[in-house]
Amino acid sequence: MIGPLNHVGVAVPDIEKALDFYRDILGATDCTEPEVLAPQGVKFAFVNLPSGQVELIEPYGEKSPIIKFLEKNPKGGQHHICFEVGDIHEAKALMEKRGMRVLGEPRIGAHGTPVVFLHPGDAGGVLIELMESH
Amino acid sequence: MIGPLNHVGVAVPDIEKALDFYRDILGATDCTEPEVLAPQGVKFAFVNLPSGQVELIEPYGEKSPIIKFLEKNPKGGQHHICFEVGDIHEAKALMEKRGMRVLGEPRIGAHGTPVVFLHPGDAGGVLIELMESH
Repeated sequence: MIGPLNHVGVAVPDIEKALDFYRDILGATDCTEPEVLAPQGVKFAFVNLPSGQVELIEPYGEKSPIIKFLEKNPKGGQHHICFEVGDIHEAKALMEKRGMRVLGEPRIGAHGTPVVFLHPGDAGGVLIELMESH
Repeated sequence: MIGPLNHVGVAVPDIEKALDFYRDILGATDCTEPEVLAPQGVKFAFVNLPSGQVELIEPYGEKSPIIKFLEKNPKGGQHHICFEVGDIHEAKALMEKRGMRVLGEPRIGAHGTPVVFLHPGDAGGVLIELMESH
């Protein structure tokens, strides 16, 4: 069912400083400008690598789901892993049939395609995002 | 400097159960058999995806560096992100020149090529592995 590893989500307290780190220290040459995804309560930017991406996410708004994560991990840290799937509704139904808790209904993610998240308690402590491929 | 996102390292308390989850629930079709990498104190297996990999790591031995991580995260969780580099010694020297703490000398990783780790305190709370490409 799961396809490519699309990206790793990294929560950061300051997305501009994080971009400086990936660009100036690690030498990444293809980073996107930060954008706001208000319905998900994040500001995000991608570090595009020859294959794979890091998605930097900073809290946006008082109800951002990342605020608690950063309270526990003030410097930031790995937040989620995103795998691509062919059809998000089929994937959601299959995950539920297999006993997984799916967090909410499909909604548009940072790539402009629908995504859902799986409960980390059912997934070895990892917050897994499933994202419909482009 | 950094090349492809090679894999995401996920620490797990039981690698066989974790493989069952990735195979039977998520539907991954290409997983390797668990192997021991004694010098690094881990048992590991790869979940190979159409692009990217998840590296499952279970503690091996009493001095395993993952034991503490699992004490804090008993169900497991995201442990590190691995980026490829062209030459590990050049990468290490460059990282040190740029003020990063590099943890130890290059050693052979799970892919059979040399790796080093960067201190998470210098890298936005993320444990970053640099791995020399094949």
